[in-house]
Amino acid sequence: MTQAIPATKQTATFTKLVSKEGGVEYDLKPIHVCEETFAPLEVHYDYDAIRRQVSRESIAAGPNSIWRYRAFLPVASENPIDVGTGMTPLLKSTRLARRLGLKELYIKNDAVNMPTLSFKDRVVSVALTRAREFGFSTVSCASTGNLANSTAAIAAHAGLDCCVFIPADLEAGKVLGTLIYSPTVMAVKGNYDQVNRLCSEVANTYGWGFVNINLRPYYSEGSKTLGFEVAEQLGWKLPDHIVAPLASGSLFTKIYKGFQEFVKVGLVADKAVRCSGAQAEGCSPIAQAFKEGRDFITPVKPQTIAKSIAIGNPADGPYALDVARKTGGNIESVNDAEIISGIKLLAETEGIFTETAGGTTIAVLQKLVEQGKIDPDETTVVYITGNGLKTQEAVQGYIGEPLTIEPKLDSFERALERSRTLDRLEWQQVLV
Amino acid sequence: MTQAIPATKQTATFTKLVSKEGGVEYDLKPIHVCEETFAPLEVHYDYDAIRRQVSRESIAAGPNSIWRYRAFLPVASENPIDVGTGMTPLLKSTRLARRLGLKELYIKNDAVNMPTLSFKDRVVSVALTRAREFGFSTVSCASTGNLANSTAAIAAHAGLDCCVFIPADLEAGKVLGTLIYSPTVMAVKGNYDQVNRLCSEVANTYGWGFVNINLRPYYSEGSKTLGFEVAEQLGWKLPDHIVAPLASGSLFTKIYKGFQEFVKVGLVADKAVRCSGAQAEGCSPIAQAFKEGRDFITPVKPQTIAKSIAIGNPADGPYALDVARKTGGNIESVNDAEIISGIKLLAETEGIFTETAGGTTIAVLQKLVEQGKIDPDETTVVYITGNGLKTQEAVQGYIGEPLTIEPKLDSFERALERSRTLDRLEWQQVLV
Ligand SMILES: Cc1ncc(COP(=O)(O)O)c(C=O)c1O
Ligand SMILES: Cc1ncc(COP(=O)(O)O)c(C=O)c1O
Repeated sequence: MTQAIPATKQTATFTKLVSKEGGVEYDLKPIHVCEETFAPLEVHYDYDAIRRQVSRESIAAGPNSIWRYRAFLPVASENPIDVGTGMTPLLKSTRLARRLGLKELYIKNDAVNMPTLSFKDRVVSVALTRAREFGFSTVSCASTGNLANSTAAIAAHAGLDCCVFIPADLEAGKVLGTLIYSPTVMAVKGNYDQVNRLCSEVANTYGWGFVNINLRPYYSEGSKTLGFEVAEQLGWKLPDHIVAPLASGSLFTKIYKGFQEFVKVGLVADKAVRCSGAQAEGCSPIAQAFKEGRDFITPVKPQTIAKSIAIGNPADGPYALDVARKTGGNIESVNDAEIISGIKLLAETEGIFTETAGGTTIAVLQKLVEQGKIDPDETTVVYITGNGLKTQEAVQGYIGEPLTIEPKLDSFERALERSRTLDRLEWQQVLV
Repeated sequence: MTQAIPATKQTATFTKLVSKEGGVEYDLKPIHVCEETFAPLEVHYDYDAIRRQVSRESIAAGPNSIWRYRAFLPVASENPIDVGTGMTPLLKSTRLARRLGLKELYIKNDAVNMPTLSFKDRVVSVALTRAREFGFSTVSCASTGNLANSTAAIAAHAGLDCCVFIPADLEAGKVLGTLIYSPTVMAVKGNYDQVNRLCSEVANTYGWGFVNINLRPYYSEGSKTLGFEVAEQLGWKLPDHIVAPLASGSLFTKIYKGFQEFVKVGLVADKAVRCSGAQAEGCSPIAQAFKEGRDFITPVKPQTIAKSIAIGNPADGPYALDVARKTGGNIESVNDAEIISGIKLLAETEGIFTETAGGTTIAVLQKLVEQGKIDPDETTVVYITGNGLKTQEAVQGYIGEPLTIEPKLDSFERALERSRTLDRLEWQQVLV
């Protein structure tokens, strides 16, 4: 199942797995839990080696994808799987910023990430490159939707067999957006946490590479590129404050790790970055622990339209709490109505159509500004991690209907008049 | 309605509008038809000025978007509307190339173009920048779907009022993917050609900027960037053969124009590029004219699942015919079943989920290879212009269903066994 890893790259920058509690060390194998402490394992790097290898110039001259940061990623291959993932736009907001009263707001737009329109393409590009290095011929995942899309697509590209597991009640676009690549799709009657438990059993008995289970230490490192890119796109500077969504909590902690690594190797000046997290009220175990000052997570049963971030028992919850607290950030939650408003607000002000996770993040951004927890003077980056075309059900019924007309000028004119009256009426209602 | 245009940039590279027949010249206004010949107007450039302004290095150092080619685009602003449009990946194909028997196949993937996942973001970024220069406060379009998405999104970003016109029978994703940005949406009971006729009337009576009517000469230039990017991404070289979809025929002719302009200013070596076009059988007026050796188009009534390219009376049809003929290309059509197979083939081999227009293009690519009209030794680029999440109806029912299981290992194992037996059966059916 596993093959020898070419020594060159490996010894150069990543060296071992280390337990997040107690520091027990392991070889670079497809394992993810410390046998002694049951804590997650994390990839360890030789930062001196990285410092010698990279510079701002060498990175800028690299590929227009996450692989420009290859020295910071746990793969040995000279030819990683590159389908153009990463280097999504960091859009300077004017209209949303003005609406919220922020002086300098940026939107990191992974709703147009390649190939499957969510940040998951980053982690999957890394995980499948690593899976190929280990010699896995079948790859798999436990997914809330986006991860299934991404694993199926990139596996198809790489010619790997693929079997994905999703909760049976996902949005149509997420299911169809997986089936199209012809993987085996298991729709599990249960929530994500049940899917995940089943997959842990499968991972133990089948020789498959589960991107977010036995390959998780490698996979999760891919999210650091969301930190790297923002720093590079800001002109090799760190922002003052970031807001990102939380499901398992992995993405959030890895953005922070990305910033720290750039400081460590001297690519950016050191600076405190406040990290704030967003959850949906119907599944907010991390936000609840944050509010109650706990450092442990009490699992919940998810009930929210934000299915992609509906993880009731988040593996990296405690680490996410720790990052928010030590950076002076916050973890907040919003309800389903606020999530829909967040989706619409971003679309109407910036022309970006995000899914429920992005709606959650925008709504939390707004809430934190209103609560005075984001200062108008802070350079703030909000992470939009998925695309609205995959969660159409969530907004259907809240965005109005087209005006149906005959192909005749007078029919158009009557409709236009009607719509202007409607606009005025709606406006009056708002004012009342 | 129209404002003075800053002189600097304008006099530098683009100078006037010229009729495509007879060469009558016009000032740079929001007009699109020659009053004498009724032929379309086209933007004229000062290529000596461009040659003095640009080099490979200056372009490569430019923004990571279509605006790196600003000297070739008809806008005067120093700050064009830049939402990250363009610079989509040119993916070197291995699995699809092998399946088709081509030695060097590249996929230009505008299914992940920003912000609305089709090549239309290119033309709309240019058109709305120009609309702002002309002082239009309301922008509009006649659309088969993607153009409406793009116009509504980028207008929202730019803070312009927006009213879009679409045929009433479009796919749900295209309608919702427009409404989300809160424009006025007119759903016209009729086909695109009727929508377009109505819009021409509206354009004459309202002071609106219709991106593909009165702004068409500027708008259409945006598609040249699909030629520029491919040349740059191939290492400043032209391909031997390209295959692209045709609706009005504009995109196709402008890719060719982009290649020619790069030769003209000395950015790439001159080379014959064969240009082949793809249409859906249910709406193939250009393919029919090509086959019958006509240089005029006989309009048809569209009947196909490829709604985004269902234009029965294509404005640039004659020019598309001319490009295909003089470059030694072909224009072919495929039926709806072949379009669906094309979508699946691309997804399964490359992990790219395209819409019906892309399925049409892949199916035509395959057909041209089978007919010997593309040589296996030619460096071929196929243009994928839109995203499959917007036309889910087209593949629903043709991609199988997930296997529904209980969250238990034995339930999973039974399902896996069942799926493997199914795979074998399907395989036997294929062999029979
Ligand atoms: C769109 C989107 N955003 C954010 C997340 C959160 O990811 P994590 O589990 O790393 O916290 C997910 C997880 O599936 C997601 O799909
Ligand atoms: C996805 C897609 N591809 C191709 C085209 C063809 O464009 P043109 O009208 O420039 O030929 C369209 C037009 O709407 C489209 O939506």
